[in-house]
Amino acid sequence: MAIKLSELAKKLDCLFQGEDCLINNVADINHAENGDLVFISNLKYRRFLSSTLASAVVSQADWLEGCTLPALIADNPRLTFAKAAALLNPVTASNGGIHPSAVIAENASVDDTATIDANAVVKSGASIAAHSYIGAGTVIGENVNIGKNSYLNANVTIYADCEIGSNCIIHSAVVIGADGFGFVKDQDAYFKVPQLGRVRIGDDVEIGASTTIDRGALLDTVIGNGVKLDNQIQIGHNVEIGDHTVISACSCVAGTVKIGKFCLFGGSVGVRDNIEICDNVIITGRTLVSHSITKPGSYSSSTPMDETTNWRKNAARFRKLDEMARRLSKLEKNDSADSDS
Amino acid sequence: MAIKLSELAKKLDCLFQGEDCLINNVADINHAENGDLVFISNLKYRRFLSSTLASAVVSQADWLEGCTLPALIADNPRLTFAKAAALLNPVTASNGGIHPSAVIAENASVDDTATIDANAVVKSGASIAAHSYIGAGTVIGENVNIGKNSYLNANVTIYADCEIGSNCIIHSAVVIGADGFGFVKDQDAYFKVPQLGRVRIGDDVEIGASTTIDRGALLDTVIGNGVKLDNQIQIGHNVEIGDHTVISACSCVAGTVKIGKFCLFGGSVGVRDNIEICDNVIITGRTLVSHSITKPGSYSSSTPMDETTNWRKNAARFRKLDEMARRLSKLEKNDSADSDS
Amino acid sequence: MAIKLSELAKKLDCLFQGEDCLINNVADINHAENGDLVFISNLKYRRFLSSTLASAVVSQADWLEGCTLPALIADNPRLTFAKAAALLNPVTASNGGIHPSAVIAENASVDDTATIDANAVVKSGASIAAHSYIGAGTVIGENVNIGKNSYLNANVTIYADCEIGSNCIIHSAVVIGADGFGFVKDQDAYFKVPQLGRVRIGDDVEIGASTTIDRGALLDTVIGNGVKLDNQIQIGHNVEIGDHTVISACSCVAGTVKIGKFCLFGGSVGVRDNIEICDNVIITGRTLVSHSITKPGSYSSSTPMDETTNWRKNAARFRKLDEMARRLSKLEKNDSADSDS
Repeated sequence: MAIKLSELAKKLDCLFQGEDCLINNVADINHAENGDLVFISNLKYRRFLSSTLASAVVSQADWLEGCTLPALIADNPRLTFAKAAALLNPVTASNGGIHPSAVIAENASVDDTATIDANAVVKSGASIAAHSYIGAGTVIGENVNIGKNSYLNANVTIYADCEIGSNCIIHSAVVIGADGFGFVKDQDAYFKVPQLGRVRIGDDVEIGASTTIDRGALLDTVIGNGVKLDNQIQIGHNVEIGDHTVISACSCVAGTVKIGKFCLFGGSVGVRDNIEICDNVIITGRTLVSHSITKPGSYSSSTPMDETTNWRKNAARFRKLDEMARRLSKLEKNDSADSDS
Repeated sequence: MAIKLSELAKKLDCLFQGEDCLINNVADINHAENGDLVFISNLKYRRFLSSTLASAVVSQADWLEGCTLPALIADNPRLTFAKAAALLNPVTASNGGIHPSAVIAENASVDDTATIDANAVVKSGASIAAHSYIGAGTVIGENVNIGKNSYLNANVTIYADCEIGSNCIIHSAVVIGADGFGFVKDQDAYFKVPQLGRVRIGDDVEIGASTTIDRGALLDTVIGNGVKLDNQIQIGHNVEIGDHTVISACSCVAGTVKIGKFCLFGGSVGVRDNIEICDNVIITGRTLVSHSITKPGSYSSSTPMDETTNWRKNAARFRKLDEMARRLSKLEKNDSADSDS
Repeated sequence: MAIKLSELAKKLDCLFQGEDCLINNVADINHAENGDLVFISNLKYRRFLSSTLASAVVSQADWLEGCTLPALIADNPRLTFAKAAALLNPVTASNGGIHPSAVIAENASVDDTATIDANAVVKSGASIAAHSYIGAGTVIGENVNIGKNSYLNANVTIYADCEIGSNCIIHSAVVIGADGFGFVKDQDAYFKVPQLGRVRIGDDVEIGASTTIDRGALLDTVIGNGVKLDNQIQIGHNVEIGDHTVISACSCVAGTVKIGKFCLFGGSVGVRDNIEICDNVIITGRTLVSHSITKPGSYSSSTPMDETTNWRKNAARFRKLDEMARRLSKLEKNDSADSDS
């Protein structure tokens, strides 16, 4: 696929400057070849403009002074570049077809334009809408609904009765709808609380590899539209995540947590059970959210890295912090008594 | 399935009050419909009793004053409700049958009442006992034994020679028996230590989605009866977990750790290698267990969440904590010298 | 398989003492039987030498004083024992064969000596080199190359275009090449940045169960030769890991991180995005690497475990640490003023 820079500018609704040229693909500015489009989203990369072999660059206008390379001028070069990359690397839409090795239950419903790949399994009552793709080895449980144009990679598992919206991307080894973790002590053992809710996932959701989202106990676990979940995330039962919230890898959200819209979580964030986080909250990486957050803003916990020998001394003092605080107060009292005298 | 409240009371061995009625299912008190049984396990939910559309409630006797709703009276409403939920939503026992797409080795042994679902693989020498269920795409390695009435969901992997007890539930993407992480430095590379032990799992164990339990190096990794493991947990080689211990999601137990009975771990707990934790220990979420625990009780680590701007200042001070402690001691000495003078 | 101790000594290039005997296998010193070889790598195990039922032991020369058991004398008993274990438990090399239920694309290339197990899927353009093994249910994407003698266990997923070297071991539920986590805010939603790079994995790499390695955005994610990754690890897009680096379970490396050679990471380590870690760095368990490391050595963060009641008091003080430091400085000023006066 090749496209003229001028045409790309038109499709991306931005200006271009310099000589028109043919663009084949996007590339990193230091590894580009003839025909590549690159971008600079940061002033410190501007120095590479003179040496890159790329045919054109996406940049803000003010970073292009003296630049002889043909350029797309964008307010948000990163966004324009991403859109160019998507244009130049279109995802082939599913054109339909069920691999002979796939196992489709008789009363499952698979749209003619949906694709079911090798050794996938679609159970009874499930429904796969137009242009969706079910990867090799993926298992779609009973009565699951998959919306239009959703792409489930290989070896995904969706448990019975769950709902996946349209335009979703689900990566391999994801498990949606496994039982929530609920037990009640019954004398000297634990009695399993039946997990009777479902998982309902909105439209335009992406779920990273090996992420798990548990079904609700009585009500449903609900993932809003446009939510982006990275790899290896755990979402407990009855969690609700608001639209367009983004959660980075290895985060763990315990049960019955309600997270607002447009939140941003760093990696390895933990959220304890039964709390609420309002809209527009940023949680930095590795934070443990131990109580509800009612005010938008940025929140953190954890301690800073240090050389192990230093860290060990400081960490040991942490166990005496309360005692230190009391000793400090006592000194202050004495000091104030001295001043008074 | 519908059952009279009076009959439910008999089956659950509890009293009922009010008019008898037909119960179809359980529900959340605020989303219940006619025919639903709900519960209150917390005084603050009592106010919903007047507005719920449910047909009956499970509650302690003393919370029912003035309540006109038919009720089951239970010492532990949560437990009685869970048991009612299980009665009203029976898991259909496996009635046997091997899907034509499943691949069963000639000398594997599958009980007539066991079910092997689509595209599952059972390797040579493996044995699947009565009423057990092997989900779609699940792979049972050579010589694995699966006890009676155990339920393995789709896309589970059990490596060769492992043992799974009776009445176990194993969720999707679980991996049992992969090699433990053992290497010895050999000049400028690492030599792999063969992992020759197995994993042995007791009865009544539940293992959450995407949890991994490594096989032992020489001896076995052992999971006791009644143990409940949440999702995304890692259990290293040669770990032993005592009966009825419960571990929450994303916890990571390093190799050769011995955990007692009836322990309770919160989410994202870490346990370093080669330590022992005695019976009846509670570890709160996100704690790193850095040394053996010999006394029952509750243990914690980590630091509290704060607004990022505050947290940054405090975290920076953490790196000077030892210095602060020394400065404090020095002041105390001076102060005491002042008093003496 | 049985072998004379004298022959084992020759193969392992070490001395032996005592009477020659037949060795069948390796074992733990306290569980050994006749015919077993055991080892002591630690003086505190020497006391078991008198009671073990083993036929021979691997040990340093100076720990064998008074020992009547036949012995292999090794500078590094752990290494010699591991090599003996490998000799006595050879991994059966793949002798070729494609299971009839496997689905191999017409233009995939599978060496005659490679094995493709039941229900595995090999997509078009993929190539599986000599003596490699593709486990049951494993899915090999389009144009993937798998080197010689590599062993992919059951239910692994390799996305299109990735490269796996020779002599690699990949455990179940591993996902290699899923999309990196890249989105750009576009008005009130996120636009997905196409992930066009690949994952390239060197030779002699082992990857633990349920570990995920994302493909690069423009350039590749690169895992060096001899790297060992434990279970449940997340490696973000465009990460580069140097040769022979070892990372323990549940660690999470964010995008565009460069890690040097011969590093050693404990469990649950987090590494934030866009930083570099030089060669020969040790990161202790549960540390969050928040900035680049340019000096070899050992680094840590986190706080020590304590009884919850104590911990709660100390953790509360952490939120006042900056204030405490200021109060301490003020006291010091007063104290110094007192001394001056």
